[in-house]
Amino acid sequence: MDFVTHNYFGKLPTLKNPILIEGLPGIGNVGKLAVEHMIDTIKAKKFAELYCKDFPPQVFINSDGTIELVKNEFYFWKAKKEKQRDLVLLTGDYQGLSSQGQYELVDNILALCKKLGVEEIYTLGGYGLGHEINKPKVLCATTHKTLVTAMKKHGAVFKKNEPGGGIVGASGLLLGLGKLQGFKGVCFMGETPGYLVDPNSAKAVLHILKSITNIDIDLTALEEKAKEIEQIAQQLKEIETGGADKVEDLKYIG
Amino acid sequence: MDFVTHNYFGKLPTLKNPILIEGLPGIGNVGKLAVEHMIDTIKAKKFAELYCKDFPPQVFINSDGTIELVKNEFYFWKAKKEKQRDLVLLTGDYQGLSSQGQYELVDNILALCKKLGVEEIYTLGGYGLGHEINKPKVLCATTHKTLVTAMKKHGAVFKKNEPGGGIVGASGLLLGLGKLQGFKGVCFMGETPGYLVDPNSAKAVLHILKSITNIDIDLTALEEKAKEIEQIAQQLKEIETGGADKVEDLKYIG
Amino acid sequence: MDFVTHNYFGKLPTLKNPILIEGLPGIGNVGKLAVEHMIDTIKAKKFAELYCKDFPPQVFINSDGTIELVKNEFYFWKAKKEKQRDLVLLTGDYQGLSSQGQYELVDNILALCKKLGVEEIYTLGGYGLGHEINKPKVLCATTHKTLVTAMKKHGAVFKKNEPGGGIVGASGLLLGLGKLQGFKGVCFMGETPGYLVDPNSAKAVLHILKSITNIDIDLTALEEKAKEIEQIAQQLKEIETGGADKVEDLKYIG
Amino acid sequence: MDFVTHNYFGKLPTLKNPILIEGLPGIGNVGKLAVEHMIDTIKAKKFAELYCKDFPPQVFINSDGTIELVKNEFYFWKAKKEKQRDLVLLTGDYQGLSSQGQYELVDNILALCKKLGVEEIYTLGGYGLGHEINKPKVLCATTHKTLVTAMKKHGAVFKKNEPGGGIVGASGLLLGLGKLQGFKGVCFMGETPGYLVDPNSAKAVLHILKSITNIDIDLTALEEKAKEIEQIAQQLKEIETGGADKVEDLKYIG
Repeated sequence: MDFVTHNYFGKLPTLKNPILIEGLPGIGNVGKLAVEHMIDTIKAKKFAELYCKDFPPQVFINSDGTIELVKNEFYFWKAKKEKQRDLVLLTGDYQGLSSQGQYELVDNILALCKKLGVEEIYTLGGYGLGHEINKPKVLCATTHKTLVTAMKKHGAVFKKNEPGGGIVGASGLLLGLGKLQGFKGVCFMGETPGYLVDPNSAKAVLHILKSITNIDIDLTALEEKAKEIEQIAQQLKEIETGGADKVEDLKYIG
Repeated sequence: MDFVTHNYFGKLPTLKNPILIEGLPGIGNVGKLAVEHMIDTIKAKKFAELYCKDFPPQVFINSDGTIELVKNEFYFWKAKKEKQRDLVLLTGDYQGLSSQGQYELVDNILALCKKLGVEEIYTLGGYGLGHEINKPKVLCATTHKTLVTAMKKHGAVFKKNEPGGGIVGASGLLLGLGKLQGFKGVCFMGETPGYLVDPNSAKAVLHILKSITNIDIDLTALEEKAKEIEQIAQQLKEIETGGADKVEDLKYIG
Repeated sequence: MDFVTHNYFGKLPTLKNPILIEGLPGIGNVGKLAVEHMIDTIKAKKFAELYCKDFPPQVFINSDGTIELVKNEFYFWKAKKEKQRDLVLLTGDYQGLSSQGQYELVDNILALCKKLGVEEIYTLGGYGLGHEINKPKVLCATTHKTLVTAMKKHGAVFKKNEPGGGIVGASGLLLGLGKLQGFKGVCFMGETPGYLVDPNSAKAVLHILKSITNIDIDLTALEEKAKEIEQIAQQLKEIETGGADKVEDLKYIG
Repeated sequence: MDFVTHNYFGKLPTLKNPILIEGLPGIGNVGKLAVEHMIDTIKAKKFAELYCKDFPPQVFINSDGTIELVKNEFYFWKAKKEKQRDLVLLTGDYQGLSSQGQYELVDNILALCKKLGVEEIYTLGGYGLGHEINKPKVLCATTHKTLVTAMKKHGAVFKKNEPGGGIVGASGLLLGLGKLQGFKGVCFMGETPGYLVDPNSAKAVLHILKSITNIDIDLTALEEKAKEIEQIAQQLKEIETGGADKVEDLKYIG
C-alpha cells in the first residue's frame, strides 16, 4: 500500500474546464456539510475513493452491518446549462492526522486535479468565533488578487488580518500548495460559533457558491438541520443553567 | 531491518483454504485472550514471528531469565474432521503504535495471508461499555452483506450504528484494507466493561467461533480465569467503598 | 513534493565569500526580529523561498486578501564598501516541527549554503532568563575555538556552562551539523525575559553584528518597537496587580 | 544526511574477539555513569561518533565556548593481560526519541558491531524501585539460557518476572534485535531509587563487570560521586520536611 491509495470506479470522468469544490471535516463541520449537501442536491456521482496511511486506522459501520475503511471521496457533476461549469467535489471522513501527511495528501489531490483538468479550486470551511452569531458572514481568501474583487461581487467578505492565524488544514493547503503549482483558488470560511456542527454557516457558504456556480441548490434541508441543532444548543444551555431536567432526547447529530 | 521483519520457523505451512483468526491486545484484551486460549486448547503450532519498528523498543523477560523482543506471532492448525477448515491464528504483544504503522503492519499481514491462501478473516476484539454486564453479547460487523445473515445464525448481534465510533485498530483495519484487496471478513466484538482483562467476554466470542469453525474448544480454563478476575474486581470495589483493609493479595493478572 | 521544496526567483545570486545570517522564530522572537530588521534596513533582496512538509499545514493571509503558504525565505545583499562582505539572510514563519524534520531542513539549508559559497554562519536567537533585565547581554557559542577570541572583541559574552541546556533548534543545529560539514559558525543569544517578543534583545544582538559586518544598521525602528512592547508589558503587569481597568488597547504585537 | 551518520577518527580499530559494553542515558543514569567511569579509568580511546536525526536538534556548549552536536560515542580498549578481552564501549547524550528511531539506531549499532567482530554484548542500565535502598543488587537478563548460569557466578541476580515491564530502550533492544542477528548478550540492571543519578548503583554494576572482564577498575571516584549525591538527597529531604533554610549549595549533578 502506498501512502495514498486510490480506488477508481471505472474510468476517470472526462470533464470540461472543471472546478474543484472541497469540504472536509473541520470547525463546525461547515465545509463538509456544505459539500455533502451539494452532492446530494445536485446528484453528483462518486468516481473515486482515496485511502491514506495518515488517516486513523479505523472502519465505520454502515447501517446494514458492513464496514467502510475511513476515506476521502471524489464526485463529479456535469454542467446542465450555459454559464455553469463541470464540478469535482471532494469530501470525506478525515483530514490527514500529521503535518507531513497533510502536505502529502494535498499534493496527491492536486495531482489528481491536474489529471482531471481542474485549474480552479474552491475550498470551504468554518471560521470559529467562540460566540453566537445571528447571521454568519462568509470570509474569503484567494490565491490571486484579481479573485478578491471577483469574490466580493458574490457577497464574500474580506477582513484585514482575519483570520489572524491564517487557514490551517486542507482548505488552506490546497490553495497554498496549489498556487505554487499554477492553480487559482478561493477559500470561503463561514462564521460559526464552532461548538456544534453548523448547518446555518454551511448555508451561508452555499449561498455564495450558488451565485458563483450558477447552480440552483435547494437549501431547505440545511435549514431544517439548522433548526434541529438550534434546539440541541438550547437544551444544552438549559442544562448548564439548571433549567432542564430531561436530557433523553439529546444526542449529537453529525 | 525493514519496517516489518519476519522470522519463519522452517517452511511456510501448506494449508487448504485456511481462515485467519486474529486477536491482538485491545479493550479488555478480549481478542488476545480468545485467540491465545484457542491456540493452547487446539495445540496450534507457531510457524512465524513478526517484529516491527512501530512496536515499542522493548524486550520481555521469560521466567528462565532470557529475553524476547516484543512481537506478533502466527500459528497454524490443520482440520481434523469434515466441516472443519485449516486455521491461521495471529496474536502478539502489541499493535502498531502509530496510525501509519498500523496501516503498514496490516498491509504486511494481508500479504502473508495471500501467500498462505487465506481468503477469509475473523478478527476478535472487545466492545467497551463502561459499565458492568452479566451476559456479554457479541457484536458483529462484516465486509460483505451476505456474511451478515450468516453470522446472525451463529448468534452474533448486529446493532444499528454500534459501535458508533466504528472499529479502531488491527481488527478494523484487517477488514477495511482486506476488503479492498479481495478478502472477506468478520469482526466479533465481545461486550466488556473494559476496566480489566475480560475472560468472560473472550468466552462469549469463542462460543460463536466454535459454532463457525466446528471445532470443540474447551472453555473451562477461561471460566476459571473469569472467576479470578471477578474476585479482583470485587476487591477493588471494596477498596473504593472503604470495605477492604488488606490489599496484599491483589495483583493485576494479564 | 519533496520534503523540502525550493522556489527560486531567477538564478541564484553570484556572491563573493558570503556569510549566512539566520534568524528564525524562537524565544522572544529575538533572531527573527533581528534578521527581519536587518533585511528591511539594508534593503536585502529575496531570491528564494523554501517550503517544507514539516511546517504546519497552514497559509497566512496578506492584507490584500491573498494567501501565502508558510515558508522560510532567503535574501542576499552585496557588500558596498571595503571590509564588508556579501550576505545571505535567512528568516521565516516556522522552524521544523519534529526533530527529524529539523535535521533534514538544516541539512538542506547547508546544501544551499555550499552552492552559494557560504563558509561562515551566524545564527541569532534569544536566551530566556525568565525574569526582567535592563541591559541584555549577548551570549555566544562557536564552532571553533579561534572564533571565541574573535567574538569577545566584538562584545559577545561567554559564560561557562551557559546556556546549560545548550542550544535547541535551527540556531544550534546549523552550527552542529555545519561544523561536521566544514562550516565555521557563531551563535548569538540575546538575553530576554522570554515572555513577549523582545526588540530590545534583538537590538543588542544587532549591535554586535554591526561591529562584525561593518554595516551601518539604523536601530531606531527597533527602539520604537521596544517602547511599544514595554507599554504592553506594563499594562499586563497592571492587569495582574488589579491596577488596570481598561484592556481595550492591548493587543499582541508579533 | 542519512538517518544515522558516522564520524570516524581514522580507520576502524582491529580488535580480537571484542565485546560491546553499552551505557546510554536512562533510569538513574546508571548505565551511562558506569560506562563513562570505565572509559576514564581504563583510558579507552574514542574511534567513532554517531549522529542521528532521531536525537533532539540540539548542541551542547563545551567549557571553552565551542559547541558539540548531540551524539553517541564509541571507544575501544585492547586487552593487556591474559583472560582479558578487547572492548568496544558505547555511551552518549541521548537514546533515539521515537520507537522507530530506536529500532533503526540499534540496528545501525549492531551493523557496526559486526564490522568490529563483536559477538557478545553487555548492556548496562538502572532498575527503578521508587524507594531507597542500601545495597543495590544487580538484576540480569540474557539472550541465551547458558548465559544465565554464567552470570549468576559473577553475582548477578535473576528474579522471576522482574522487571515485570521488561527492558525498554537501547539496553533491551540491543539484546532483542541482536539475538535475532546471532549476537549473545546480557543486560545488567542496577537497582536504584530512580530519583537522582545514582553512582552507587553504577558501582554495583561495575563490580560485576570487573569480575567478568578481569579488568581492574578503580571505583573510588564513583564512591565520591555517590557521597555527593547522598548529601544532595539529604538536603532535598530536609527542604521537604522544612528543616533546611539554605539551598544555595544545592545543584543538580549530571
